[in-house]
Amino acid sequence: MSGEIVHVLGAAGFAGAQLAALVDGHPHFALGTVTARSDAGLRLVDIYPEYRVTATMTELDVAAIAPGDFAAVCYPHAEASELVATLVDRGVRVVDVSADHRLHSAALYPEVYGFTHPREDLLAEAVYGLPELHREAIRGARLVANPGCFPTAALLALAPVRDHVIHVVVDAKSGVSGAGRRPTASVHFSSVTESVTPYKVLTHRHAPEIAQEFGQEVLFTPHLVPADRGLLASCYGRFVGDTPHPDDLLEAYRRFYAPHPFVEVVDAPPGMHAVQHNNFAQVFVTTEPRRGLFVGFGVIDNLVKGAAGQALQNLNLMAGRPETEGLG
Amino acid sequence: MSGEIVHVLGAAGFAGAQLAALVDGHPHFALGTVTARSDAGLRLVDIYPEYRVTATMTELDVAAIAPGDFAAVCYPHAEASELVATLVDRGVRVVDVSADHRLHSAALYPEVYGFTHPREDLLAEAVYGLPELHREAIRGARLVANPGCFPTAALLALAPVRDHVIHVVVDAKSGVSGAGRRPTASVHFSSVTESVTPYKVLTHRHAPEIAQEFGQEVLFTPHLVPADRGLLASCYGRFVGDTPHPDDLLEAYRRFYAPHPFVEVVDAPPGMHAVQHNNFAQVFVTTEPRRGLFVGFGVIDNLVKGAAGQALQNLNLMAGRPETEGLG
Amino acid sequence: MSGEIVHVLGAAGFAGAQLAALVDGHPHFALGTVTARSDAGLRLVDIYPEYRVTATMTELDVAAIAPGDFAAVCYPHAEASELVATLVDRGVRVVDVSADHRLHSAALYPEVYGFTHPREDLLAEAVYGLPELHREAIRGARLVANPGCFPTAALLALAPVRDHVIHVVVDAKSGVSGAGRRPTASVHFSSVTESVTPYKVLTHRHAPEIAQEFGQEVLFTPHLVPADRGLLASCYGRFVGDTPHPDDLLEAYRRFYAPHPFVEVVDAPPGMHAVQHNNFAQVFVTTEPRRGLFVGFGVIDNLVKGAAGQALQNLNLMAGRPETEGLG
Amino acid sequence: MSGEIVHVLGAAGFAGAQLAALVDGHPHFALGTVTARSDAGLRLVDIYPEYRVTATMTELDVAAIAPGDFAAVCYPHAEASELVATLVDRGVRVVDVSADHRLHSAALYPEVYGFTHPREDLLAEAVYGLPELHREAIRGARLVANPGCFPTAALLALAPVRDHVIHVVVDAKSGVSGAGRRPTASVHFSSVTESVTPYKVLTHRHAPEIAQEFGQEVLFTPHLVPADRGLLASCYGRFVGDTPHPDDLLEAYRRFYAPHPFVEVVDAPPGMHAVQHNNFAQVFVTTEPRRGLFVGFGVIDNLVKGAAGQALQNLNLMAGRPETEGLG
Repeated sequence: MSGEIVHVLGAAGFAGAQLAALVDGHPHFALGTVTARSDAGLRLVDIYPEYRVTATMTELDVAAIAPGDFAAVCYPHAEASELVATLVDRGVRVVDVSADHRLHSAALYPEVYGFTHPREDLLAEAVYGLPELHREAIRGARLVANPGCFPTAALLALAPVRDHVIHVVVDAKSGVSGAGRRPTASVHFSSVTESVTPYKVLTHRHAPEIAQEFGQEVLFTPHLVPADRGLLASCYGRFVGDTPHPDDLLEAYRRFYAPHPFVEVVDAPPGMHAVQHNNFAQVFVTTEPRRGLFVGFGVIDNLVKGAAGQALQNLNLMAGRPETEGLG
Repeated sequence: MSGEIVHVLGAAGFAGAQLAALVDGHPHFALGTVTARSDAGLRLVDIYPEYRVTATMTELDVAAIAPGDFAAVCYPHAEASELVATLVDRGVRVVDVSADHRLHSAALYPEVYGFTHPREDLLAEAVYGLPELHREAIRGARLVANPGCFPTAALLALAPVRDHVIHVVVDAKSGVSGAGRRPTASVHFSSVTESVTPYKVLTHRHAPEIAQEFGQEVLFTPHLVPADRGLLASCYGRFVGDTPHPDDLLEAYRRFYAPHPFVEVVDAPPGMHAVQHNNFAQVFVTTEPRRGLFVGFGVIDNLVKGAAGQALQNLNLMAGRPETEGLG
Repeated sequence: MSGEIVHVLGAAGFAGAQLAALVDGHPHFALGTVTARSDAGLRLVDIYPEYRVTATMTELDVAAIAPGDFAAVCYPHAEASELVATLVDRGVRVVDVSADHRLHSAALYPEVYGFTHPREDLLAEAVYGLPELHREAIRGARLVANPGCFPTAALLALAPVRDHVIHVVVDAKSGVSGAGRRPTASVHFSSVTESVTPYKVLTHRHAPEIAQEFGQEVLFTPHLVPADRGLLASCYGRFVGDTPHPDDLLEAYRRFYAPHPFVEVVDAPPGMHAVQHNNFAQVFVTTEPRRGLFVGFGVIDNLVKGAAGQALQNLNLMAGRPETEGLG
Repeated sequence: MSGEIVHVLGAAGFAGAQLAALVDGHPHFALGTVTARSDAGLRLVDIYPEYRVTATMTELDVAAIAPGDFAAVCYPHAEASELVATLVDRGVRVVDVSADHRLHSAALYPEVYGFTHPREDLLAEAVYGLPELHREAIRGARLVANPGCFPTAALLALAPVRDHVIHVVVDAKSGVSGAGRRPTASVHFSSVTESVTPYKVLTHRHAPEIAQEFGQEVLFTPHLVPADRGLLASCYGRFVGDTPHPDDLLEAYRRFYAPHPFVEVVDAPPGMHAVQHNNFAQVFVTTEPRRGLFVGFGVIDNLVKGAAGQALQNLNLMAGRPETEGLG
């Protein structure tokens, strides 16, 4: 018997489609409505044959989403906040996969995202959905703000040294699926292949999100790399007190992440292959005591642990299901 | 001192830009106007930094193209024929890089290209610009129809066995630049990477062009491969008479192409690397006498020997310059 | 409770490791010994972190493999036949993932594989393990010869037109994992990226295997493409009698494959993404009645449906388990 | 008429072969002996068809290298120093493309490169061959130490802010050709595609070289990316005094590099395409005055400006030729 219904709103994009596929294969949840705008009327399988999800996308009908149901809102930023408010007010439990509830401070929205947030109360209430930092709050939440892909990888690499490391630089490398499904010049195969390109230098919207959760500003620079899925955050910093021996830091990370089923602390700098198409993150850290240096790496699949998989992990927690259900 | 002026009309696309770069670096020709529609006002270097061509693209002004000048028309098919006619009538010598003068039979245009050709006389007059087959005619031509990328590779692999081989299958693999600069779902990096996809099966417009020059219909199937540049035509057929020994066929190909500076008959099946960013084609052929089988491979850079380089090769011939000038 | 034990012999290679991972995740089978030569002593996860299989590879000890157990032999060709004989004689039920029992005719082994086969009786007994052709024989078999990757894709595209189509050309495109784990010049990233290369033209060992099962010789040419996993067989031929309408042929294929859970007959030429990391094959066919042409495409993951997944499919059948168990 | 002879010793590797090709196409220099060890007897074109260099590689014969000739030594580190000494003592003018004369301090060699340097005098005499920093010294040098690929890109991005920026982090992304021609597990296509992997974290040998020329230690981390050629160094730091406005810093870089024909200061973060297969470097820099941050990017082709092209640039300077001759 299936249990709670999960609606995926905005299912035609990369993250939404991945989430619909995960929900469709979940042993407990039932896939509710899957919505799209220009693709309404198509089946998910028509666009994403790899997922084999035959549900037909429809236009949004809020009335079809019952109080007590779950909804994941996979809209572009600035377009999700009103729908999220409507749903939460209606008694639907929501994971907002967009960026519209990630920052607690309403004052940041005009500058960072270009709109005035309509519901300061929901910004204050929304739980930042990184289970490795906020699991208990997620369990009871009405509204979870699913983290951005870059913050997920960076924060997992950095969280255990919060308050110990300063002058943090995050140099991130993202696969092209992170740029979304819309074809543009910058995702044309001929632009991407055989190159690496930095973008949104000093201006990327994920920087304030990292700062909020890490407790200090970092120097964040994303790069586009010739891969479909995968996101590596290479993190550098300087210890403020004593610098631990590399082995001791690695051991401290192992202890920190021991209760967290999706974070693997590994023995060597990770590539992307071991995390693609699954919800794992891999983390490796080391130090150079002579110079007081910290180096850490976090790698995820940007569409899974960086988006849809983490959304399902949050839904599992909100619904009281095992955290890993449907994700292994 | 520079010599003749070459105008590149439609320089914002992949082939046009490559041609403008080749003309710009040519020791004899001078680059005339470079035109574009939506990109008029931009410099070529703004879109194609790799070519370092600083000329500014303008809207087309036929008056700026003097009789006696050369013009290469790099327009989409069905959009070139009228301009080409205007230019030829004006006394401009033209290489039409579009498909609008490749087929001698006007009757084919409605079916193959979806328009009625306005100038049957120019179709009859236009020389098919594969120098390895029509060099002498190209020299004196007013109008050269630059071959398609697939026909170039296939015909170079097949021409020496014309009239000896039947039941020909051409299975071609093209880099993504062959699909042009416009971003679409099918050239999104995430669509292309880690895949090979057949397309336009039994319906591709280059099939009649191959048939015209090879003298018989072939079964032609293009595939999109995860590469930027490069086009491999794998050709299969059956000998109608005696099947030559592989060494003898290879030797016959060497003799056939000895006068042709851009075709290299090689000793093993070629990959794409040796022809990328240059105007060479590499050809390898073999046979299986027991079963009467022919196997041949032709590989080119689709934007150079398959488009812009071949156009310059034709311009060299038309202008009485050394065939390889500016192409080595 | 786990059921039968499956030993994976030769688990350090790409196919063996993939199979060990599939068996490890199977709800019924238990993973027995996993063996390796130079990598004995390492855990599978040390080489293949993406599979998360912690079993340690050991040197082969036949005594550890009990009669009634299952064994998959993932050895290089010419190195498997003796072990397979030993195991079968011992009462172990074997899937030979190597090529050593695929050809029924012992006379072919010296020419095709360079060795004299030691056990003509087992060649005669071995069932060719393409379940879509030989499911019932597989169920009762003591020894199943797991098909090659190219024959799997080609035969699935061709089987329904056996006896109706002649002059068959198979132009196949394989990802690099098909070449195996050993680093060589031809699998160096710098050799492979941005290229497609034909290889073993007219001499590839999978040609006789296709001929045996298709009932006629074909012209088979493999190409290496810049992808890790995925194998596309583009197949061309001529109908001997009437040529069916494309829709009718597609419908005939749908009926042919209706009882086969892993073959999807699709509406358009397939790329590789929908079959990567799973055991599905996708097949598309069409015709050109005017010229009597057949065109068919079969695409698989060379390591799954083309090797390890198909081996598990065979093991499921041999053990009386549901055919799809552990494969979805 | 050709002028000075340039011998390329160790021509079978990626850098040596690229250099032999550049010398072979140089309008003034003549290609002398090209040497190899296991590949002696082969022609360069047999291994590198893309260069079309027909010279046959021979075993080293020092007697064939006359005083007054030029030699480029493209050996692995620790294997070049003795040959270089022999050649310099013989009156040959040498560019050492290996790492054996890059560090001025002999004391560093045992720790960094694992051998005791035999000729401290030559370490002291060797000029570090980054023309943008040491052009005049290169002109008169008997021995030029050609820089490493990572230091070239990083130093070009950083040199103008030397003494103004501290706490420098260099996160570098290199194409696979930087790892050399030898096939290993880490350059197998299946390892590299669809991934980015950090390596030699805190231990890479290019770090002391950057420190020597930049005047302070940096935190340097290389990453392997799925590209053949291309190297991007992303550099981060903090200004010690006032932080310039981004426009002013960019303008200062333009002035700094105005006399240098191969460095292009560009208006936006560069990708790799514009520098592949040529000797250009592209540099972009910006700042965030509020936080005192410096961000700079340098991108090159690791085999050209990062190795063989820079070697030819140095040879041009040593021979009194135009700096760009044979490089455009």
